[in-house]
Amino acid sequence: MNKAQTKIVVMGDSISDCGRAKPVGEGLFGALGRGYVSLFDAMAQVDHPEWGLRVVNMGIDGNTSRDLLARWETDVNAQAPDLVAVLIGINDVWRQFDSPFQPETHVLPDEYAANLRQIARQQAQHSYRLVFLSPFFLESNPQEPMRARMDEYGALMREVATENGIPFVDLQQAFAGLLQNFYPGYLTWDRVHPSEPGQLVIARKLMGAVESLRG
Amino acid sequence: MNKAQTKIVVMGDSISDCGRAKPVGEGLFGALGRGYVSLFDAMAQVDHPEWGLRVVNMGIDGNTSRDLLARWETDVNAQAPDLVAVLIGINDVWRQFDSPFQPETHVLPDEYAANLRQIARQQAQHSYRLVFLSPFFLESNPQEPMRARMDEYGALMREVATENGIPFVDLQQAFAGLLQNFYPGYLTWDRVHPSEPGQLVIARKLMGAVESLRG
Amino acid sequence: MNKAQTKIVVMGDSISDCGRAKPVGEGLFGALGRGYVSLFDAMAQVDHPEWGLRVVNMGIDGNTSRDLLARWETDVNAQAPDLVAVLIGINDVWRQFDSPFQPETHVLPDEYAANLRQIARQQAQHSYRLVFLSPFFLESNPQEPMRARMDEYGALMREVATENGIPFVDLQQAFAGLLQNFYPGYLTWDRVHPSEPGQLVIARKLMGAVESLRG
Amino acid sequence: MNKAQTKIVVMGDSISDCGRAKPVGEGLFGALGRGYVSLFDAMAQVDHPEWGLRVVNMGIDGNTSRDLLARWETDVNAQAPDLVAVLIGINDVWRQFDSPFQPETHVLPDEYAANLRQIARQQAQHSYRLVFLSPFFLESNPQEPMRARMDEYGALMREVATENGIPFVDLQQAFAGLLQNFYPGYLTWDRVHPSEPGQLVIARKLMGAVESLRG
Amino acid sequence: MNKAQTKIVVMGDSISDCGRAKPVGEGLFGALGRGYVSLFDAMAQVDHPEWGLRVVNMGIDGNTSRDLLARWETDVNAQAPDLVAVLIGINDVWRQFDSPFQPETHVLPDEYAANLRQIARQQAQHSYRLVFLSPFFLESNPQEPMRARMDEYGALMREVATENGIPFVDLQQAFAGLLQNFYPGYLTWDRVHPSEPGQLVIARKLMGAVESLRG
Amino acid sequence: MNKAQTKIVVMGDSISDCGRAKPVGEGLFGALGRGYVSLFDAMAQVDHPEWGLRVVNMGIDGNTSRDLLARWETDVNAQAPDLVAVLIGINDVWRQFDSPFQPETHVLPDEYAANLRQIARQQAQHSYRLVFLSPFFLESNPQEPMRARMDEYGALMREVATENGIPFVDLQQAFAGLLQNFYPGYLTWDRVHPSEPGQLVIARKLMGAVESLRG
Amino acid sequence: MNKAQTKIVVMGDSISDCGRAKPVGEGLFGALGRGYVSLFDAMAQVDHPEWGLRVVNMGIDGNTSRDLLARWETDVNAQAPDLVAVLIGINDVWRQFDSPFQPETHVLPDEYAANLRQIARQQAQHSYRLVFLSPFFLESNPQEPMRARMDEYGALMREVATENGIPFVDLQQAFAGLLQNFYPGYLTWDRVHPSEPGQLVIARKLMGAVESLRG
Amino acid sequence: MNKAQTKIVVMGDSISDCGRAKPVGEGLFGALGRGYVSLFDAMAQVDHPEWGLRVVNMGIDGNTSRDLLARWETDVNAQAPDLVAVLIGINDVWRQFDSPFQPETHVLPDEYAANLRQIARQQAQHSYRLVFLSPFFLESNPQEPMRARMDEYGALMREVATENGIPFVDLQQAFAGLLQNFYPGYLTWDRVHPSEPGQLVIARKLMGAVESLRG
Repeated sequence: MNKAQTKIVVMGDSISDCGRAKPVGEGLFGALGRGYVSLFDAMAQVDHPEWGLRVVNMGIDGNTSRDLLARWETDVNAQAPDLVAVLIGINDVWRQFDSPFQPETHVLPDEYAANLRQIARQQAQHSYRLVFLSPFFLESNPQEPMRARMDEYGALMREVATENGIPFVDLQQAFAGLLQNFYPGYLTWDRVHPSEPGQLVIARKLMGAVESLRG
Repeated sequence: MNKAQTKIVVMGDSISDCGRAKPVGEGLFGALGRGYVSLFDAMAQVDHPEWGLRVVNMGIDGNTSRDLLARWETDVNAQAPDLVAVLIGINDVWRQFDSPFQPETHVLPDEYAANLRQIARQQAQHSYRLVFLSPFFLESNPQEPMRARMDEYGALMREVATENGIPFVDLQQAFAGLLQNFYPGYLTWDRVHPSEPGQLVIARKLMGAVESLRG
Repeated sequence: MNKAQTKIVVMGDSISDCGRAKPVGEGLFGALGRGYVSLFDAMAQVDHPEWGLRVVNMGIDGNTSRDLLARWETDVNAQAPDLVAVLIGINDVWRQFDSPFQPETHVLPDEYAANLRQIARQQAQHSYRLVFLSPFFLESNPQEPMRARMDEYGALMREVATENGIPFVDLQQAFAGLLQNFYPGYLTWDRVHPSEPGQLVIARKLMGAVESLRG
Repeated sequence: MNKAQTKIVVMGDSISDCGRAKPVGEGLFGALGRGYVSLFDAMAQVDHPEWGLRVVNMGIDGNTSRDLLARWETDVNAQAPDLVAVLIGINDVWRQFDSPFQPETHVLPDEYAANLRQIARQQAQHSYRLVFLSPFFLESNPQEPMRARMDEYGALMREVATENGIPFVDLQQAFAGLLQNFYPGYLTWDRVHPSEPGQLVIARKLMGAVESLRG
Repeated sequence: MNKAQTKIVVMGDSISDCGRAKPVGEGLFGALGRGYVSLFDAMAQVDHPEWGLRVVNMGIDGNTSRDLLARWETDVNAQAPDLVAVLIGINDVWRQFDSPFQPETHVLPDEYAANLRQIARQQAQHSYRLVFLSPFFLESNPQEPMRARMDEYGALMREVATENGIPFVDLQQAFAGLLQNFYPGYLTWDRVHPSEPGQLVIARKLMGAVESLRG
Repeated sequence: MNKAQTKIVVMGDSISDCGRAKPVGEGLFGALGRGYVSLFDAMAQVDHPEWGLRVVNMGIDGNTSRDLLARWETDVNAQAPDLVAVLIGINDVWRQFDSPFQPETHVLPDEYAANLRQIARQQAQHSYRLVFLSPFFLESNPQEPMRARMDEYGALMREVATENGIPFVDLQQAFAGLLQNFYPGYLTWDRVHPSEPGQLVIARKLMGAVESLRG
Repeated sequence: MNKAQTKIVVMGDSISDCGRAKPVGEGLFGALGRGYVSLFDAMAQVDHPEWGLRVVNMGIDGNTSRDLLARWETDVNAQAPDLVAVLIGINDVWRQFDSPFQPETHVLPDEYAANLRQIARQQAQHSYRLVFLSPFFLESNPQEPMRARMDEYGALMREVATENGIPFVDLQQAFAGLLQNFYPGYLTWDRVHPSEPGQLVIARKLMGAVESLRG
Repeated sequence: MNKAQTKIVVMGDSISDCGRAKPVGEGLFGALGRGYVSLFDAMAQVDHPEWGLRVVNMGIDGNTSRDLLARWETDVNAQAPDLVAVLIGINDVWRQFDSPFQPETHVLPDEYAANLRQIARQQAQHSYRLVFLSPFFLESNPQEPMRARMDEYGALMREVATENGIPFVDLQQAFAGLLQNFYPGYLTWDRVHPSEPGQLVIARKLMGAVESLRG
């Protein structure tokens, strides 16, 4: 993928979306949204102008791994990317906690793993590379129920990544430092959506993964 | 206070405010806001029409015990109430966690207790009765840092109440049942502002205290 | 219907709707609207967490029994409920009084009874139970013309309920106490839409009926 | 007052106001509001162009006789009118019914009569004539509590008018015909604010009174 | 047409429309718009309640006689009226003066007469009666070019009305008195759309025609 | 006034205002409004860049000559202009026609002339030159009442201009050509506010006057 | 094309569009937008009323020559014009500079020339004449990269115009004077969209071309 | 300034402001605006949590060095900062180019240097340190007139910084790399306000200066 112009599509939920342009999150005037995707794009243009990196944000608020799969053909493959970053799983877990009476909205571990495996298979069938970013919960106590559940999903993603040779970024671990220094209420209003320091952490981690891939 | 018409003023923060009319939260068309104060008023009109209860909501978003004291004369005494319910302390604690770099917004335990004592003295100087409602944090783990801090403030309020013969309602305890059955994310989006089930719990507890007072 | 999770669909008009989410009134953030349905849900979660009650509000502003019938398949049966509460009839009557020149909007007694009978038959064909809540008019004088007409419709609903073994809640009677103590103008701005005390009365009556059903 | 140009000021509440221009309700583009005042002005320009009638609407939403008195100097006398029409009393009564717990908003019969007497005295001290329009309630049953109370106020206004030689228009009686033919819900949404047929009745009655005065 | 309930449909342009409800201008809450149609309805309910008159406003801003014809089937015949009032022709003329370069928007005299004749034929084919209201221009000088042109169209309408035994109301003549007493700028901002005195003139003339028809 | 930078202030009513920036109409982004002032400024920058012309629009909607005088010190003299263009008189006349019952809003010929004379005297007391632009009415018939009245005011302005050696631009005459070719309805919606062709006529005439002054 | 009425369609991008009416930019009340098209229309009505010129603005924000071609049939030919003015090419160039990573949005020189040639062929197949207005960049330094690129496109347009006998207006050259006297920041906020002085330059140049054509 | 908590105030224009909270730009929910100040704060919390850095954004849109001086006492000294970053000069220069006719808005080099010197003297009188960030223009050609002028101001700031031992950050130079790789139109819509890549450059440069100061 070391050609003159590289196209990266980011797939995810509201943590990626952040008000991006619809239907395609690419271009000037805030089209990338106001989160880590835009920050990552800025870092790439400043630090790696020779990459000719083209960033497309396809995150959608509220998406689960089930939703990603359903729109993969139109939102990823049709874009003909060189690289696809996937940050998913928060809503798969969250609905189990905030909507206990609506089980049809819950994506349980087995389905989550199956969905990720189907996404992983796409890589073999197309010419692009995948990067997996783990879901996370901005809570420092690993025994807290929703944190514990999110860790379980992170482990599943790592497993699928390993099986398929996909670079895996452990964002929950990446937040460990911040959570040691700050109470979650400072970093996020709902322990799910990080404010700017958290977005910076994700952008840097994604950049690290992309730099590794480009060797 | 068993006269034909009873006037109760509610003092507090956003948990009481809930969009009440300004400057005085009394009257028709949502003037009581959409939280426990309005629910309490509905219960009183349905169950105790003979009380002739007149409810005035004076909660203001973001208030601490410091803010309550500053506007006590104009917002409580000028209303000539028979009864004053006080639910305060969440923001005294919260700012210590979500705004660690702005210490001037923190109301520390000593000041909190002193503010409550000054409020308690008002009772002696005027003809009304006070009811104290403890601050709470919708988190089931008592070791969680902000929950632990909130419990500390609840204990201080209980202490001041006991010293002054003021009925004390332990709302943190009142929420124990709900927290056993539901994850906080179902009951509130930020562990501070309860949705309708939580508002119902507060309204019922306040009603219990008022019924006791009226014997 | 004593299984682990119980789903209740509420069918009705603006008294049920109260700004619920569309097309399906279920979930967080005010999805149940701001009326008796949301209050009923709060009571259930606080008092009967073991029910695992799932509440879906399908009320629509301005509906008559004719409208309910027309959308019964998609709005009730497709939800696969365990229980269906029906509060209908106010607009069947009101149009006869406020739109005297538009007879095509009037649902006369014969049609009202026929519509209810068709709804009652649904119960036999599906696995859910029905609860009927009578229409009401917040006027204390039973000779007042619109009140008298509404009483006529309430009697018809009771008749259909009895014929079909459907629990019947007489809301007009439930409001008798409030109307003795307060002038209608305090309880409602148009004698049709109750403010919070009235919503509380309905929620409690519905809860009573559901508790009876669950034995 | 038969001079070339005649200026009439209308004092009242929301029934007169109807969205008039503020602070002075005079001029083109809806400055007279969309109620009987504008209709009366239209009738005068069509039927009596020789009067050179200048109409000023000084009604304000929610006003009682107490409020009228408080702004009489600035809103009436400062306008130097030839004629002043007064339609007041609805809110004096209504608050007693819809805000039973706020007695400070109630204008009781004694105060109402006293306020009207003070207004009547203005006539002697200035060069203008007064016309009194009775308050009314769009309810056909004279035993209905709020209707009965309104009739009591109408009788008081008639008494003050007679004492002071002020023309008195009985609007409650003027609505008798409409109420015989139509249910209140067709004529008004709250039995207080008449829709266009009711506004036409008031405008015609006011015109009759002004025609009599001009002989 | 002297049956218990009479339905009248008003067809026209912005002078009739006045913000009526769409798609059908009938019912409460301003559905008739704020012009002569609503005033006419008020007069009918007050003065002729025994007519049981049902008024439907089908005026649309900017319409010409060509537009009326195009929607006659759906907007008039489908309503099954007893009576149809037609006030049309202002835009047929106006476009010739304000849009001289867009001849496709001009409805010339021959077409205007032909359109009216086609409308007249509808009467024979259906069970309703027609009333024609002439177009007008609020200008007192009959030599003024647009006034002269409008008079020409008024004469054509009178001709078609006479041929077909349709009652004809000469509104231009009806405004003669107002125009003698007031400058057009007081009665209308553009010499086309009358303010309330002008609307009153139209409403009264239409009422006169309907009273004659009902004999 | 042939110095390197020339500052021109335009005083007038809504014909000059056209949505200019407040309180001072100078600068980028539409600060000059969307009328002849902005067009005049564009012509000056394109055709006479060497003038260094600085244009300030001080027109205010609805102003009469009386209003101009009242704010002359703050709005003109405080700006220290080299040149002041005055286009005033339309509202002095219009109010006599559209508000016949409000004589206090009428500026009669004597006052108009006196106001202009007082403005003329300012020229002698300060270092700037004046240019007078006549009021106009977009009506081709000189016998039409408001046109005739406006001509009378134009003649008064010409008289005051001549007495004081002030350049006078007869805008009514400037519009003669347009009015010969087009009906007023094409040039303006109310015969007062010209659309773009009319604004172009004014801008060019003002430019002619300024070019003459600069020799 | 010297017939009594001449219709001119303007095709272009945001420099022509300027908020014109959609779908067809013709008529009163700002339908021509607020740019050179409206100014050109005003000049024509004032200076050449005998032309009977009918101006239709079909500019659309963001269009390139590729977009113009795609809508030529419906937006130009269907209008049956006598004359078509085309100002296009800014976005063909701009996207190459502001969206370097989205090559599918770039219209390169070869395609630009081909698109213009296809437009030129339309002239032979229909009865209208074309006028070409060159794209421009408000930058005075011809070595500046985007200015240099725009000049290249202007040369291509001139070439196609010459080949096909189409009048060609060099707008870049027309702006030379303004750019000598003023910094681009005064004439435009982005060096692309001219403010009023620039719009005046375009309008005059287009008028010159049309005058030449009419001989 | 190596104490436990460090407070930094940022003074500047719209490049710093970016929609910050008013009157004081500190706290959660976007209070720091969406530009380099917020990015800088995120970097500090992630990389230097031990600093306890408290960031206050006091930038105001459109400010020049003259404006900064005028509000220095209230907006800087009253905040009792440890460090003050100053990024100013863009508007001092820009007004000379975009508002050539309003010389009172121009801050010429002499005044600019004098203003900076007065700011520098504040450092001696208070306990805080200053950091100067040079103004810049996103134009790669140093001969371009506004770029050349901005360089002149940058040199003046460097001079004042050197005289007073104030750390100086040359932002124009910092942008050299980006300008080599990208056309200004990609980095900014007006060559003044940088989009995210530019904001990142500033944030990093400011971080470098602060890190140096803290040793």
